[in-house]
Amino acid sequence: MEQDLPAAAAPVALRRYAMAVEYDGGEFSGWQRLSKHGEPDRPGEPTVQSALEAALSFVAGRSIEVICSGRTDAGVHAASQVVHFDGPAERDPRAWVLGTTSRLPPAVCARWCQVVADDFHARFAARARRYRYRILNRPVRPALHRQYLSWERRPLDADAMHRAAQALLGEHDFSAFRTVHCQAKHPRRDLQFIAVRREGDVVEIEVQANAFLHHMVRNIVGSLLPVGRGDQPERWIAELLAGRDRAVAGPTAPSAGLVFVGPRYPAHWLLPDEVTL
Amino acid sequence: MEQDLPAAAAPVALRRYAMAVEYDGGEFSGWQRLSKHGEPDRPGEPTVQSALEAALSFVAGRSIEVICSGRTDAGVHAASQVVHFDGPAERDPRAWVLGTTSRLPPAVCARWCQVVADDFHARFAARARRYRYRILNRPVRPALHRQYLSWERRPLDADAMHRAAQALLGEHDFSAFRTVHCQAKHPRRDLQFIAVRREGDVVEIEVQANAFLHHMVRNIVGSLLPVGRGDQPERWIAELLAGRDRAVAGPTAPSAGLVFVGPRYPAHWLLPDEVTL
Repeated sequence: MEQDLPAAAAPVALRRYAMAVEYDGGEFSGWQRLSKHGEPDRPGEPTVQSALEAALSFVAGRSIEVICSGRTDAGVHAASQVVHFDGPAERDPRAWVLGTTSRLPPAVCARWCQVVADDFHARFAARARRYRYRILNRPVRPALHRQYLSWERRPLDADAMHRAAQALLGEHDFSAFRTVHCQAKHPRRDLQFIAVRREGDVVEIEVQANAFLHHMVRNIVGSLLPVGRGDQPERWIAELLAGRDRAVAGPTAPSAGLVFVGPRYPAHWLLPDEVTL
Repeated sequence: MEQDLPAAAAPVALRRYAMAVEYDGGEFSGWQRLSKHGEPDRPGEPTVQSALEAALSFVAGRSIEVICSGRTDAGVHAASQVVHFDGPAERDPRAWVLGTTSRLPPAVCARWCQVVADDFHARFAARARRYRYRILNRPVRPALHRQYLSWERRPLDADAMHRAAQALLGEHDFSAFRTVHCQAKHPRRDLQFIAVRREGDVVEIEVQANAFLHHMVRNIVGSLLPVGRGDQPERWIAELLAGRDRAVAGPTAPSAGLVFVGPRYPAHWLLPDEVTL
């Protein structure tokens, strides 16, 4: 039987949108799509980007590609990953949020969406990124919330970790905390904030930089742990930084404890407060 | 080939132990074992009790049965479920905790274990039980932490819910909040504490009673929600309680938001502070 051909598509007016998405990275092989745009994920390797593009494309009625503020690795969560995309002008932001979320798997949702200037770029416009790392510090591994925690059985001195971490503040060559797979053009980053605090059994590390090298947060955490355990002196972090040798720093901490809190943009982009500098 | 017969078992000195366990109820068909003791769980219906007994029996080298402070339904979590059991006297409490946890699935762990008086009974000795219920209150469903939250899209007035809930304090007939499947001998319970507070997007309800009827916490939450949404006046909770009619109260709130914080015992049992009245 013959099928009706679709009517020739009328040209559609496009607007640029910014959208924040939240995801449980434990269910994905990372942010970045590994297959070609529009094709399904490789079997057993679901990606957040692919799930999001499929949902957005359904809502838009046309193929949508997204650019994110910063890719996350397999297992790493995001509270507010920001993306931009170009989509039909007649959709209202609320429809994007609810419609897209209804097409996303349970481990992802859209938080907000708004029209932005045509030259907004989720990656290049971001001036800072913030991450949070949570370690359950008790003799027994976690059962509750284990999807969002790493675990250290030996007692950690969070105050010592905090003091040691302050050596990282400012612009430095962070080669000591950079994985060999890092594709960045240079190893200099401006670390703007780092704090280590304990709340009950949980030691939380919060860190902000203009941008991060590949595995940089997890490698910093992995090097703060020996300080917290008392196996290394507080000055060790400063020494690692100065030595620029990845081989002598601590191991990469597990992904489950890490959340990409979100990027920060200059106020003139008129984005929600939570992502504005 | 013939196999050696095991040597006749020497009589083993037994001690009574109390143990606290933490679990992610989302991975279980509830606390209570549905098969016979020592037999595997029915296919597709794993229970926490069965997993715990198997792990304890392995560590003990003999069959162990446990009695808990209060059974939890399918999907309900526990931060500190307390059990008692009789086990070999020569095991030290640390070995029970670490050995048992190493044999438990990832969704369960032991928190502590200690020798108790022979007449300690995890259920009958408990004078109070505490539960916590968490609702994410925003337009979009959760992705992060969704395993431990329920979700309400309409704005909730947590203060109104808190004021309404105070009508439940004291000893009452809680038939309005009791499921038809409840097997308790009578519907009177002493509700000692209930608080509703908001922290950011999360509305948290904490409640303590001498004991709870089946589904009582989730039915109380399900009736506080219409008050929070403004669909019912604050006095509605007092009216429901007085009417003792389950059919007019709110629906049972979902299990994912509910955590059994733990039981409370009189101080003379010399248990850890967290479960002592």
